[in-house]
Amino acid sequence: MKIARFSSGGDPRFGIVDGDELVVLTGDPMFVGFDTTEERVPLSDVRLLAPVIPRSKVLSVEGNYPADPDEDTDAAPLIFLKPNTTVVGPGDPILLPDGVGAVAHEGELVVVIGRIAKKVSVENALDHVFGYTVGNDVTAVDLMAEPGQESRAKGYDTFAPVGPVIETELDPQNLTITTRVDGETRLSGSTGDSKNTVAELVAFASDIFTLLPGDIIMTGSPAGDGAITAGQFVEIGIGGIGTLGNPTRARA
Amino acid sequence: MKIARFSSGGDPRFGIVDGDELVVLTGDPMFVGFDTTEERVPLSDVRLLAPVIPRSKVLSVEGNYPADPDEDTDAAPLIFLKPNTTVVGPGDPILLPDGVGAVAHEGELVVVIGRIAKKVSVENALDHVFGYTVGNDVTAVDLMAEPGQESRAKGYDTFAPVGPVIETELDPQNLTITTRVDGETRLSGSTGDSKNTVAELVAFASDIFTLLPGDIIMTGSPAGDGAITAGQFVEIGIGGIGTLGNPTRARA
Repeated sequence: MKIARFSSGGDPRFGIVDGDELVVLTGDPMFVGFDTTEERVPLSDVRLLAPVIPRSKVLSVEGNYPADPDEDTDAAPLIFLKPNTTVVGPGDPILLPDGVGAVAHEGELVVVIGRIAKKVSVENALDHVFGYTVGNDVTAVDLMAEPGQESRAKGYDTFAPVGPVIETELDPQNLTITTRVDGETRLSGSTGDSKNTVAELVAFASDIFTLLPGDIIMTGSPAGDGAITAGQFVEIGIGGIGTLGNPTRARA
Repeated sequence: MKIARFSSGGDPRFGIVDGDELVVLTGDPMFVGFDTTEERVPLSDVRLLAPVIPRSKVLSVEGNYPADPDEDTDAAPLIFLKPNTTVVGPGDPILLPDGVGAVAHEGELVVVIGRIAKKVSVENALDHVFGYTVGNDVTAVDLMAEPGQESRAKGYDTFAPVGPVIETELDPQNLTITTRVDGETRLSGSTGDSKNTVAELVAFASDIFTLLPGDIIMTGSPAGDGAITAGQFVEIGIGGIGTLGNPTRARA
């Protein structure tokens, strides 16, 4: 099932996507379950928001896809932190700061944690997953190449667009991720090429940090990254979830 | 005034330190102000908790103190992120993971943000500060030296002890920070030696990230770091705030 967080003028609410309508839920399903209200609203009448705002952290995985066929695939992935202030939703602008060099899109499958996970086994890891969404792990790639600048390179406000919905039933291991800029396909790759399964990533991350409900893991971009500049429109599509689109703008 | 967050058996509450008692507040003073209840409780009857749990992020500053007198002090500080799952309070154990090499204490002045700060000027920066506490920016220093491992090196659960209280009125620029291990003084230094003032750090950080109320900035250790091993007791004292003490244990 597909869960949206949305606004129809007032406070954010949650709903289950049913055709071209949303069945409004009583609250955040991650915390109160999937109880529905009597209300249905047309999708065309609402603004979709980031489907989750992490209470704690956004994890960004690098090195989860081999850069070339000869690469050693046994190395542990690298994990970077993005603060929750990076998170924006569908349609929100990605703001490009001055003076940081090139900024790139990274279209990624995003894991949404549903239950506290602390040193969980690979076998049990998926029990802690609420669902999956689409993310753009925006990165200032020139800064990222400088030692000690990773938090800044990945941490600017708006550098983690996520959405449009969370899909709660999905096999994450064979999904096509396509990145389009201004309507033109730039990159396409499959989660089937990942070095680590989602279960392995959740287990690995939970050995470092306690993962809290609503934390998200951006699992790496199978097809690499690409530069973005102000005035573009970046879309990341994942089959089975949907397409996340965001304009880019120079930061004021 | 000194603000404590404490438990006397039930849910965490906040209080103002008045001699050997706490004047209980109606709620979190960062959000509801300093309204007091009729209740007073002896400090000896409560357990002090981390005085703040950041809703968003813990920033860890490196390079804020010159390593030697000839160092170029114009370089921008480096900022690392620690998730809020690193935060523990006075007396809570620092858990040392296996297989990460040496772990070190870093006794630091901690800035607690009180108002949303986004691209604030140095002149206005301190208006966004709620107060100051003591922190131990625990770091797996061997991991920290490996490229891309900073989030992990600084991000393990319990790697950000803070407390015992937040002092809301304090000149942060001339404070002595003393680190003791098992009662023996290991390091002592002054915030007067910092390359950047607190106002400069807040302004710099707020240009990268929106700082939210409750976010904290660990401002760097004036006297460097030192290795800790399981079974020790680490105390960080800052004149005008108090002393934060935590035992160390091997992680189970």
